[in-house]
Amino acid sequence: MEGNNSNVLRLRRLGIDTHTEHIIFMRSDSSVCISEGFTANTRVYVHYSTKSIIATLNVITSELIEVGEAALSEAAFRSLNAAEGELISVTHMQPIISFSDVRAKMFGKKFNNEAIQRVISDVNRGLYSKLEIAAFVTVCSGDNLALDEVIYLTKAMISSGATLDWEVPLVMDKHCVGGLPGNRTTPIIVPIVAAAGLIIPKTSSRAITSPAGTADVIETMTPVDLTLEQIMDVVRKEGGCMAWGGAVKLSPVDDVIISVEKALDIDSAGQMIASVLSKKAAAGSTHVVIDIPVGATAKVRSKEEAFLLEYYLRAVGLSIGMSVEVLITDGSQPVGRGIGPALEALDVLAVLRNEPAAPADLKERSVQLAGLILERAGAAPNGKGAERALNILESGQALTKFYSICEAQGGFKEPAPAPIQHDILASTSGIVHSVDNRKLAKIAKLAGAPKSPGAGVLFKSPIGKYVQKGEPLFTIYTASQGELSYALTFLHSAQHPVELVAT
Amino acid sequence: MEGNNSNVLRLRRLGIDTHTEHIIFMRSDSSVCISEGFTANTRVYVHYSTKSIIATLNVITSELIEVGEAALSEAAFRSLNAAEGELISVTHMQPIISFSDVRAKMFGKKFNNEAIQRVISDVNRGLYSKLEIAAFVTVCSGDNLALDEVIYLTKAMISSGATLDWEVPLVMDKHCVGGLPGNRTTPIIVPIVAAAGLIIPKTSSRAITSPAGTADVIETMTPVDLTLEQIMDVVRKEGGCMAWGGAVKLSPVDDVIISVEKALDIDSAGQMIASVLSKKAAAGSTHVVIDIPVGATAKVRSKEEAFLLEYYLRAVGLSIGMSVEVLITDGSQPVGRGIGPALEALDVLAVLRNEPAAPADLKERSVQLAGLILERAGAAPNGKGAERALNILESGQALTKFYSICEAQGGFKEPAPAPIQHDILASTSGIVHSVDNRKLAKIAKLAGAPKSPGAGVLFKSPIGKYVQKGEPLFTIYTASQGELSYALTFLHSAQHPVELVAT
Repeated sequence: MEGNNSNVLRLRRLGIDTHTEHIIFMRSDSSVCISEGFTANTRVYVHYSTKSIIATLNVITSELIEVGEAALSEAAFRSLNAAEGELISVTHMQPIISFSDVRAKMFGKKFNNEAIQRVISDVNRGLYSKLEIAAFVTVCSGDNLALDEVIYLTKAMISSGATLDWEVPLVMDKHCVGGLPGNRTTPIIVPIVAAAGLIIPKTSSRAITSPAGTADVIETMTPVDLTLEQIMDVVRKEGGCMAWGGAVKLSPVDDVIISVEKALDIDSAGQMIASVLSKKAAAGSTHVVIDIPVGATAKVRSKEEAFLLEYYLRAVGLSIGMSVEVLITDGSQPVGRGIGPALEALDVLAVLRNEPAAPADLKERSVQLAGLILERAGAAPNGKGAERALNILESGQALTKFYSICEAQGGFKEPAPAPIQHDILASTSGIVHSVDNRKLAKIAKLAGAPKSPGAGVLFKSPIGKYVQKGEPLFTIYTASQGELSYALTFLHSAQHPVELVAT
Repeated sequence: MEGNNSNVLRLRRLGIDTHTEHIIFMRSDSSVCISEGFTANTRVYVHYSTKSIIATLNVITSELIEVGEAALSEAAFRSLNAAEGELISVTHMQPIISFSDVRAKMFGKKFNNEAIQRVISDVNRGLYSKLEIAAFVTVCSGDNLALDEVIYLTKAMISSGATLDWEVPLVMDKHCVGGLPGNRTTPIIVPIVAAAGLIIPKTSSRAITSPAGTADVIETMTPVDLTLEQIMDVVRKEGGCMAWGGAVKLSPVDDVIISVEKALDIDSAGQMIASVLSKKAAAGSTHVVIDIPVGATAKVRSKEEAFLLEYYLRAVGLSIGMSVEVLITDGSQPVGRGIGPALEALDVLAVLRNEPAAPADLKERSVQLAGLILERAGAAPNGKGAERALNILESGQALTKFYSICEAQGGFKEPAPAPIQHDILASTSGIVHSVDNRKLAKIAKLAGAPKSPGAGVLFKSPIGKYVQKGEPLFTIYTASQGELSYALTFLHSAQHPVELVAT
């Protein structure tokens, strides 16, 4: 049942952007649709030159395209690397064998190594529909993956993409299990570690649901959209980099899975661990320090949860020959003062420049994490890492290294906060009792972060501080009055993110 | 953040059929996309007149539509009941609260009654994306629903649609847990039961993955695409009907869920039970007899599985005040001889007409099931139902009633088998040892069934029969040589569906 000549169609470009979805548009009266029995939503193989992709069929019942033509979504054009006027052929797609492994998991059968390899390989080849990926993500969600399944998944994800080789015995890395606004230690840790003579090829993500990803913050100071070759060059020259991981596609299958997880707003501990550690392994890292902030409105809400994550992370690390160290930190309130790309970058620079008003909490965390990395690399005796890190920071070596890395990535610029500023004032006097990270993050997003890099929230009321009535609790930064009113509407509709108690 | 005037767009009809998917096409440079931050794949509310739907955004980056215009998929046009040139507005959609119940189930928390009600209500309102439905279907799959959860689900599905009221104490119904080719007892049972003076408003489905659904078979003899009013009229007049259930939408949310289950090829016992019993309850049925064929290549593969299904069906029936009776039958081979709409209809007519060559197995099953219905309705003493049913059948009363029902549905016609016939001959002599239902079904589908109603397989080699070398095992019926070659290619590529052993 392979394709024949009646399955050949000429490409039209309609300019339809479906994000990453592969869509093919064919006429209902085309000989392909009739002879193959294709109807709307059939999934088909589309062949062009030596490439094939799977696409979902939308049927055209009008004269939008001519007889003998087919159109593709922009994503499908990109994946096939095809142009208008080229010839494609369209054939039936066979059922995906590996999906029976997902079905077996639904019935409570554990994944074995071969099953996970099959599934990840097929997802990587683009055989899975979004629906099938949603089902896979769901059977892996919550605590439905046992340790051995997480290990199989991590290994399968590592083997689905390229792996960097730095040809040195020690490659350091760090990661933060996110969810805490302003916790931007990476641009402080990378220069400290690199200044100590170690290799730290750090890649970071952009925001998906938060007001700023680390890559967004760094981008307000230096370009982050580097190719693999550029990353290799920067790291060979400076020992470290601060790049966006998305362009590098070190774990391509992970990006696909994460996009469905985000659409469903599903968390899966097993999936997250496999995602983080497979990316680190693909980046060639041998030693990874992981920050887990714990707090009522952080991603990890209890110490017990953090301990379990630590156990999984260390055990999976062991199975793939990676040393994993975990630091459980305070996640009860934002770190530093800025929430939003440029505002967080200003905190980072204040620490690196040893300014007297630099946020002490951000400095303290960065030094702790960097110290742990130095100890694991043997660059400081055990128990002396933080001291060494502090010394590198306060001596100005970290700032010099930071500028050098920025220079290697394409140059440094000062981050620019948004022009419109609006103070949110305390309506009574009192001591700050609790802070809702999620609400502050939402206000920063409504104010325009991260799309508007200067927008966000400047937080001024940490837990335990005494504030007087009329004193600002935080300041909203926006580029437009419209965004300010979005943020204020939400602020007034919900419980206040900063809770005061009378003294 | 409600919509304002910049969110108003004029509709263009591009004639894009996406099956049931609601898609809205908007220009990337439209003020709506820019001011609201909509990007490709955003899910948005589309408002027209008093109606609102949720649609997925495809972004147009070309001149396909004008500034100020938006296009919709055909399904979205239908759901809004809108026409080209009308004005719509587009606004943000809020997160779905009930999806947190699905997330909790992923973490092992059982659904309670309120949670299931919330989820089904939101699915019914069209709030769930296909991905979210896939996640819901997955957490319900396999044996992941306990009895109480199935009961909640059944009740939620009943309350999601309309319920018929026949104003009589006894409304009979039957169902077959599918998967057995040729098992077409409905058009024999309905006239027997109706001829006995009982009410049996039977609706059936069309094929989704099989070569013929009951509605497809009946359609070769009489119209089945009846409105709710027509069904009521036929049943009031004749006591029974044989209609397609799809047009009636008795359990609208079930159709949505089933379409995702089919796309994923997932079976869920709990979902299936809720689906079957909610549809029967919505049809107003008080007594339901359910046929569960068991066989290695049937849907239910073991007696144990059938017993468990029986327990669930009866217990859920009890909870919704419905008497459910189960008959576990032989599912080791096709019933009758035809596989495909017209070929199965010819079997049905042979039984109703008491032809000497009528398939005895189809007659036997129909009489057994009809007898059980008569007994439960008190129309025959216990143990005497089959005798009474046989009497109604052999006396010709069933045939007369069958013709009357067909007349009420729009008239009777003789089913017409496809013109091209090709015998598959035994390559050796021997006794038929086993038959693969799934392979025979696939051959019938490749031959064109059910789209080509005369196509399919005429099966001539039941288990235990002695066949001589060169004698036909079955005959393939097709409307075209191309389809015949599809069927033969598959037949030759796979193990033979009829296994012979030498005597």
